[in-house]
Amino acid sequence: MTERKAILLIMDGLSDRPVSDLGDKTPLEYAQTPAMDAAAARGVCGLMDPIAPGCVAGSDTAHLALLGLNPYEIYSGRGPFEAAGIDMEVQPGDVAFRVNFSTVDDDLRVVDRRAGRITEGTHELAQALNGLEIDGVKCYFKESVAHRAALVLRGEGLGANVSDVDPHEVGAKIWEAKGADEASQRTAEVVNKFVRKSHEILREHPVNKKRQAEGKLPANIALPRGAGLAPHIGQSFDERFGLKSACIVETGLIRGIGVYLKMDIIDVEGATGGLDSDVMATAKAVVQALDDHNFVLCNIKGPDVAGHDQDAMAKVQMIERIDQAVRYITDNVPSDTYLVLTADHSTPIEVGDHSGDPVPLVIDGPGVRVDEVTQFNERAVTAGGLLRVRGTDLMLMLTNLMGVQHKFGA
Amino acid sequence: MTERKAILLIMDGLSDRPVSDLGDKTPLEYAQTPAMDAAAARGVCGLMDPIAPGCVAGSDTAHLALLGLNPYEIYSGRGPFEAAGIDMEVQPGDVAFRVNFSTVDDDLRVVDRRAGRITEGTHELAQALNGLEIDGVKCYFKESVAHRAALVLRGEGLGANVSDVDPHEVGAKIWEAKGADEASQRTAEVVNKFVRKSHEILREHPVNKKRQAEGKLPANIALPRGAGLAPHIGQSFDERFGLKSACIVETGLIRGIGVYLKMDIIDVEGATGGLDSDVMATAKAVVQALDDHNFVLCNIKGPDVAGHDQDAMAKVQMIERIDQAVRYITDNVPSDTYLVLTADHSTPIEVGDHSGDPVPLVIDGPGVRVDEVTQFNERAVTAGGLLRVRGTDLMLMLTNLMGVQHKFGA
Repeated sequence: MTERKAILLIMDGLSDRPVSDLGDKTPLEYAQTPAMDAAAARGVCGLMDPIAPGCVAGSDTAHLALLGLNPYEIYSGRGPFEAAGIDMEVQPGDVAFRVNFSTVDDDLRVVDRRAGRITEGTHELAQALNGLEIDGVKCYFKESVAHRAALVLRGEGLGANVSDVDPHEVGAKIWEAKGADEASQRTAEVVNKFVRKSHEILREHPVNKKRQAEGKLPANIALPRGAGLAPHIGQSFDERFGLKSACIVETGLIRGIGVYLKMDIIDVEGATGGLDSDVMATAKAVVQALDDHNFVLCNIKGPDVAGHDQDAMAKVQMIERIDQAVRYITDNVPSDTYLVLTADHSTPIEVGDHSGDPVPLVIDGPGVRVDEVTQFNERAVTAGGLLRVRGTDLMLMLTNLMGVQHKFGA
Repeated sequence: MTERKAILLIMDGLSDRPVSDLGDKTPLEYAQTPAMDAAAARGVCGLMDPIAPGCVAGSDTAHLALLGLNPYEIYSGRGPFEAAGIDMEVQPGDVAFRVNFSTVDDDLRVVDRRAGRITEGTHELAQALNGLEIDGVKCYFKESVAHRAALVLRGEGLGANVSDVDPHEVGAKIWEAKGADEASQRTAEVVNKFVRKSHEILREHPVNKKRQAEGKLPANIALPRGAGLAPHIGQSFDERFGLKSACIVETGLIRGIGVYLKMDIIDVEGATGGLDSDVMATAKAVVQALDDHNFVLCNIKGPDVAGHDQDAMAKVQMIERIDQAVRYITDNVPSDTYLVLTADHSTPIEVGDHSGDPVPLVIDGPGVRVDEVTQFNERAVTAGGLLRVRGTDLMLMLTNLMGVQHKFGA
């Protein structure tokens, strides 16, 4: 059998519930999606529970499951993946946090959680905090986009059951981090000392002096949240599945999962993660990546954004734009390439957030047991040949078809 | 409720993918199978993942799962089941191997992996190796068919993460067994000493002197492979499920599983495990076994052989011959006997080896929720009432119907 390649296209938050404004169709049912429907007609379809039926999955936990890892075993918080997503080194056993540069008053009450939506000087501010050592724990700090940053703690016996310092509310006093077990208590103490230290250092920093002289809010404190323990995952994704993989995604969080699993990261200009994203640029990058990879993970964020916005027509339009990208991909890859279309979770218009409803799945490519389904949407796929599977099944199903999986037994 | 009996007919490697030469039907879809279709029409159908969706199962791991055991917990290699299959005593904690009698030169390079396909004198050769004691480990050795044999090591603290000695290649020097952990390293040392000892003993053995005088290749070494730790399984199959079971199968490996689970083994003359097998003799043995058993496991190997041969028409013909055996069985057992038709894995024509595609399942017998399915094949059963289940579910579903299962809870 010749080597076969595969594309896993995850349309973030794609699936939905019936929307009355759309005549009780879901946005995916309502949208005109001839390319996705053609894939459904050629392929084998089914429902997928990204983690478990009814489980309201995050994008991170769902992507871990779709990439073959058990999120219940390895996931304790998004911090490590956010940090990896901005190319910080994250080692198993590290505890990492998302951080906001924020503005507080002298009583440590939050004036602005985003420090006046600071965009410049954050590199210098981050440098002033990076490398601190507190109680024998090394503190690595790096800026991300705008007011965002990440903190990685490295040392012996750290715990990740640490509560947030960011009170998520203007006017509230910052919270003391608390640990739910002994290791996490020790870690929380380090975090609290780090936060106080960040205030001492940042309030005197020239970047902030300049901002205040210009009438801007100073980024005078770093507020961590989303603690997570960096998991031991053993082999890389490629080692585990016998693949050479590329990761083309739009958000730092999912990028961080790709980095953590040691996939080749390909950043695409114009892939903004918003409704304005240049999905055709992403499609071209996917096709190109197949030249020297046999597996491409691609995430397009737009449908999730529209779902959070509760904007049904924006979601329909985003889906129709993605359909053109799917058309481009199917027109430009070898015909024996597997194309998997699915979502990481539902983000229903009526909810405005993630939900635990299952997602549609099609696997299009050689050898599949083609079924009668001719439309790609939440309800049509229930008549498909895959029936109902789980996210953690997907990579086994795909590597089986690709012929790269080792037999278990004799 | 009167006592009900059950037959579990596993058609090895039965299921497949669409084959273009068969008009994009699978061999099972293409074959004329009126008896199996009648069972599907009377029964309840579905898809089954022998181990997990997409998991490429071996015959051994799949049979363990279908018999209610978790292969991820208990399976480390085929050795113990091969040894049990030739009626060697295998105790939990033993480490066992498949072995070839081979021919090597004085540099221990392989001249023939099968020792000139030796057929006679292997009992005497095996006797010369059986009972050796090396570093406090007892070595039990027994011949199987032709050049095949098995080795069982018994002693304290053995490990089964031991690599093969057989280099699987003519002209190559035999490999040194290596252990992946401390117990396995110790075990590998015993294996290496055993192999050298086998060469010392066998090259001087009268059987080989005679072979050489006749111009035949001497079976002058024993080359182990496929190390496995004999698992602790607790109760026998019958104790676990409240059954009195018989095992009617065609290969030593599956026979060994039956022996290990303490099922009554019934050997059938003419059941060759090949495409020429007398499946009607097997069918008769199944019917007869039901006289004094209430559960019969039957495996017919032919479909897997045709799949490995990538011979679609041979697979179709084998399936049609099995259908006649199914007809004989249904015509000759009490009408309230449960008949389960399924496979242990797919062996698709296009792959020529096992694949992780799901297999069709029908349970025909009293009380099942009869569905609309009227054909027994991979795609028709997806409309069935069982939807999609796993191999380890099967014995619970069956003992539930038979009325022999104890309530879990109150």
